[in-house]
Amino acid sequence: MVEFKGYALTDPSAWSNLELVSFKPKTFEDEDVEVAITHCGICGSDIHTLTQGWGKSRLPLVVGHEIVGIVTRVGANVSEFKEGDRVGVGAQVASCGKCTFCKEDDENYCMDGTVHTYNDVYPDGVITQGGYSTGIRAHQQFVFKIPDGVELKDAASMLCAGLTVFAPLYRHGAGPGKKVGVMGIGGLGHYAIIFAKAMGAEVYVFTHSPSKADDARKMGADHVIDTHDDAFHKPYAGKLDIFISTIDVWRPDRPFRTYLSMLRVHGKFVNVGLPDANNPLPPMHAFDLQTNGAFMGGSHLGSKTDCYAMLKLVAEKGIKPWVQEVPMSQAKTALEAVKQGNVKYRYVLKQDIAPVPY
Amino acid sequence: MVEFKGYALTDPSAWSNLELVSFKPKTFEDEDVEVAITHCGICGSDIHTLTQGWGKSRLPLVVGHEIVGIVTRVGANVSEFKEGDRVGVGAQVASCGKCTFCKEDDENYCMDGTVHTYNDVYPDGVITQGGYSTGIRAHQQFVFKIPDGVELKDAASMLCAGLTVFAPLYRHGAGPGKKVGVMGIGGLGHYAIIFAKAMGAEVYVFTHSPSKADDARKMGADHVIDTHDDAFHKPYAGKLDIFISTIDVWRPDRPFRTYLSMLRVHGKFVNVGLPDANNPLPPMHAFDLQTNGAFMGGSHLGSKTDCYAMLKLVAEKGIKPWVQEVPMSQAKTALEAVKQGNVKYRYVLKQDIAPVPY
Repeated sequence: MVEFKGYALTDPSAWSNLELVSFKPKTFEDEDVEVAITHCGICGSDIHTLTQGWGKSRLPLVVGHEIVGIVTRVGANVSEFKEGDRVGVGAQVASCGKCTFCKEDDENYCMDGTVHTYNDVYPDGVITQGGYSTGIRAHQQFVFKIPDGVELKDAASMLCAGLTVFAPLYRHGAGPGKKVGVMGIGGLGHYAIIFAKAMGAEVYVFTHSPSKADDARKMGADHVIDTHDDAFHKPYAGKLDIFISTIDVWRPDRPFRTYLSMLRVHGKFVNVGLPDANNPLPPMHAFDLQTNGAFMGGSHLGSKTDCYAMLKLVAEKGIKPWVQEVPMSQAKTALEAVKQGNVKYRYVLKQDIAPVPY
Repeated sequence: MVEFKGYALTDPSAWSNLELVSFKPKTFEDEDVEVAITHCGICGSDIHTLTQGWGKSRLPLVVGHEIVGIVTRVGANVSEFKEGDRVGVGAQVASCGKCTFCKEDDENYCMDGTVHTYNDVYPDGVITQGGYSTGIRAHQQFVFKIPDGVELKDAASMLCAGLTVFAPLYRHGAGPGKKVGVMGIGGLGHYAIIFAKAMGAEVYVFTHSPSKADDARKMGADHVIDTHDDAFHKPYAGKLDIFISTIDVWRPDRPFRTYLSMLRVHGKFVNVGLPDANNPLPPMHAFDLQTNGAFMGGSHLGSKTDCYAMLKLVAEKGIKPWVQEVPMSQAKTALEAVKQGNVKYRYVLKQDIAPVPY
C-alpha cells in the first residue's frame, strides 16, 4: 500500500508546529495522476486553515496547494501525462465533471463535487492532504503540465496565487488599452501586477505599504498610489476597467465606495482576498453601487483553460515570480514569517522528506 | 417672466399634503427644450424624497420625474425637436457633457455635472422642480421624442421606472437564450418582466406576494417563484444570466448569497432598488462572491441611447405598461396608495392645473 509523508497539523493550539506523519492517499483511479512533490508554495489559505480562522480543520492535516513535481503514475484513462512529466496541482483536485459549470470550462466553480486539495473529503471518505508532503494524487483535469523553460520552483506558487489573479484578469479582458488596479502587494498582488503588465494593461497599484513601492514598480506597476491619504482615490475616479483586490483586512473607516469610485462605468472590482469567517466585507448601501454602475464580485481559483493561458504567458514572456525557497522542514519559520507579513513575495518549500524520482 | 405652477411639498411633517405653488424655471438657454406637461408618473423616489428618507429636501419642492408633454419652445442649438413635438423627460435634466462618461454615451453616470430633475440645483442657483406641474425646461440631451403610436400616458413612467430596468437589461445582454431573474413586482419590476420578455429572454420572477403571480405571468413571466420557502433558490442554482432586483427592503434573515447563488458563472445581480439612507444592503462576506464568481452591481437611470432603444422596442412590440391614470390634483391619494403598496403597477398623474397647448 502506498503511503505518503507530510508535515501535518496535529494540535491546533500550536498552529505552526507541524509534525511529520504518514498518510494514505485516495484510491488510485483511472483518471488520476500521481505526483512526487518537488516544491510547494505557502499560501495565505494555509495559515487561515492552520489557525482555524476558516473553522475547525480536520486532523491531522497537511496543508499546501501550490504543488509541483514529477508524475510517477498515470491512470488508464490519462493520455495527457506520462511518468516523468513536470506538472503542477493547485487548490482543487476534483469536480463533478457533469454540472453546467464543469461542462462549460468552469470546473473551478463546480456546483456539486469540488474537492479541495486539503482539508476536504473525497467521495470514498479519504481526507485530502496537501503539498507539504512527498506526494499527491489528483484527477487529471486538475493536473497541469509545466512548460519547458519554466522552473518548477517558480511554477509552484502560480498554481494558486498566480491563477487566482490571472483568471479574473484574463476572463474580464485585461489587455492593451485597459487600466487595471491592484490593491495589496502580497503573494497574490505581486502576481496581479506582473500578469496585468505582461498582458499589456496599464497597472495602478494601491498600497498602504509605501516601502513596497519600488518593488511594485519593478514588477510592472505604471503608477503606485499611497492609500494613507483619505483622498487618494479622487484623481483616479472613473479610470479603472478592472480592480483586483487581494487584501483581506478592510479599514473600517473607509467606505467601500472609495474603491468602487475608481472604476469606469460597469467596471469590475474583483475581490480575491479571503478573510477569516468572522470578518465580513465593509457595509454597503445600494447608492454605493449606483454612481458608476460598477460591479463587485469575487473569483475562485481558475479553470484548466485559464491555467494553461497563464502558463503560456509565463513561458512566452519569461515571467519570473518573486519567490524565496526554503527547505520543507523549515515550514514553521516560513509560515510564521508569512503570518507577520514578512515575505517577498512568496515562500516556496523545497522537498526534503524523501528524494524525488526522475 | 415665465412661471410654472406645481403641487409642492411645503411642510415635511405632512409629506403627502402638496400645495399648489408658482415657481420660476431655470434660465432658458440655447440647448434647452421647454415642455408643457401632460402627464407625470409617481415614482418611489418621489416618496423617499417627500418623506425625507433620503435626507432633508429643499422647500418648497415639486417632485415627479416621469414626465411627458408637448414641446413649447426650443433653444437656438436644438434641432432634434420643434414646438408641438410629443416628448418626455426622466430623472435627469443636465450633465457636464465633457467628462469621459458623458463622451461615451454614459451621461447618466456623469462624474461632474448631473442635475437631477427635482431637489437639485442648477449651476445658476435655480432649484430644480419636477413634473407634478405645468412645465419643465431641460437640456436637449435629456429630452426624448415619444414615438408615434405610443400614448403619452403610457410613456410617462417608462422614463424613470422603465429606463431604470431597461438599461441594465440592454447593457448586460438580455435577449434570446438568456435567463433573467426579476425580484419585486412593483413599478420597476413590472417593466423588468415586460421588457425582459419582449427582448426574448426567459423570465423568472421571484416574489413574496403570490397574489401578484397571475399578473406577473400576464406581463410575461415564464416562471413565478414564491420566496417564502427558505429553500426557494435551490432549484435555480447557477441558472440566471442577469438578476434585476427592484426591492428596497431586505429580509434580514436571508443572506445575500441566497440571491447570488442563482446566477451563472460571472452572472450579474443588478440592484436598482434604492432604500432610505439608513438602510444598507445585507452584510456580505468575501466567500459569498466566490461561489460562482458572480457580480453584484447597481445601475443609474439610462442614457439617451438606452432610452431610444427602449422606446423603439416599445413601439415595435406595441408594449403597454400597467398604469392607473388619476388627475394631478389627486396626487395625495395616489402617493399614499403607493407608499402602502396599493398600486398596479404605476400611477400616472394627468395634468389638471392648466390646459396644455397644441
